[in-house]
Amino acid sequence: MSETTKVTAAMVAIGDELLSGRTQDKNIAHLAKFLNIKGIELAEVRIVADDTGAIVEAVNALRAQHEYVFTSGGIGPTHDDITTPAVAQAFGVPVINHSLAFSMLQAHYKKRDMEFSTARQKMAQTPDGAILIENTVSVAPGYIIENVYVMAGIPAVFNAMILAVEPQLTGGKILLSSTIDCPHGEGTIGDDLAIIARQNPEVSIGSYPRFKLQTYSTQIVIRSRSQVALDNACRDVETMLSKYAIT
Amino acid sequence: MSETTKVTAAMVAIGDELLSGRTQDKNIAHLAKFLNIKGIELAEVRIVADDTGAIVEAVNALRAQHEYVFTSGGIGPTHDDITTPAVAQAFGVPVINHSLAFSMLQAHYKKRDMEFSTARQKMAQTPDGAILIENTVSVAPGYIIENVYVMAGIPAVFNAMILAVEPQLTGGKILLSSTIDCPHGEGTIGDDLAIIARQNPEVSIGSYPRFKLQTYSTQIVIRSRSQVALDNACRDVETMLSKYAIT
Repeated sequence: MSETTKVTAAMVAIGDELLSGRTQDKNIAHLAKFLNIKGIELAEVRIVADDTGAIVEAVNALRAQHEYVFTSGGIGPTHDDITTPAVAQAFGVPVINHSLAFSMLQAHYKKRDMEFSTARQKMAQTPDGAILIENTVSVAPGYIIENVYVMAGIPAVFNAMILAVEPQLTGGKILLSSTIDCPHGEGTIGDDLAIIARQNPEVSIGSYPRFKLQTYSTQIVIRSRSQVALDNACRDVETMLSKYAIT
Repeated sequence: MSETTKVTAAMVAIGDELLSGRTQDKNIAHLAKFLNIKGIELAEVRIVADDTGAIVEAVNALRAQHEYVFTSGGIGPTHDDITTPAVAQAFGVPVINHSLAFSMLQAHYKKRDMEFSTARQKMAQTPDGAILIENTVSVAPGYIIENVYVMAGIPAVFNAMILAVEPQLTGGKILLSSTIDCPHGEGTIGDDLAIIARQNPEVSIGSYPRFKLQTYSTQIVIRSRSQVALDNACRDVETMLSKYAIT
């Protein structure tokens, strides 16, 4: 893959608890930061309920549009864990008992003198043709099917699975970024910033308002795949801000 | 609207910063909890970049599927705030200067002896036909167009706008819920819980694993629009758990 190719990914975060306000998602920001470092741009996230139709629709829409799709949640042992049959349906393949996953889990529970119950055996199921993702935290694996990476929802396990698949991900050129803190509100600098954005087409300039103690300030984040373009745009912003310096 | 009707909503959270890991979203969980109390189910969330095509696609897909769509972000004064032209494009209407918004903002900046710059005037723009949402925090309004509620991304302003639109939202019957803490992992109780889920079709039972100190425990969340069905399912779960009581 070329160093200048833009490589994009999407995420499907699965679970009623994310949509009821019960659970504050932690995996989105973690995945985003990890992908940035790999030169992969997280382009969209969908949070969907434990609902087969919603999962199928999201996985199929996103896997067609992006190099990688990562899912989180719904691969545990209980009745509300429906990610695997939904992903299988999205790919039009059957759910199978994955023999390697089955033997790993069987050995794990035997060693601990715990029953390898029907519920636990469910965690050995994958869509036909999937390749396992190692879970160094709690054994039950995730899996890869084509460009879709199916991972656990528990942050510690999700993070371990990200590390496990890292060598298999190929990114483009890394997106560089610089952040400039600006003590003025967006309304003050907005017109000048728009001019700088137009004059620096190789960068994207994000402007993030903060509102504290009844006063607005702004963080300006400049991103580019070119260090030269990034440096030029940063210099333009610093020059512009010096106009507003409190003297 | 009938008391038993299910009313659903979706959210479109807009902003590159949510997809770069720079900003941890706070609005999703806040909206979810607020909607729960109103008897409206948050069925899907999409997080999209500051990208017109992505915003148009998400808004149009979701407004066709749900009673309400709420957006957050992208209505400020800077060049990267593109939510308004994107929403106008989604509805096929022009962007206009909203005269009430314009005069409110003009008066606000005049009172503060601040320039009503081109950047700030941008915050008076809406898609043609929109109705304003009051911003009690910092004046610049959100707006409603058909079933789409366009609101600010800053949590303090987002929350104020939610309160402003509250009287206009009509929910269905409120989803009741009970949470039962279970000291056992999902693998232990999973088979029994699946039986209870099948025997109690009027409730949805969510099972949420926790992993701490190398040990799994589970939170069981039971939800229903019927108090009787909820009580029955809770009793069944308590009875099941008593089987596993540590004696």
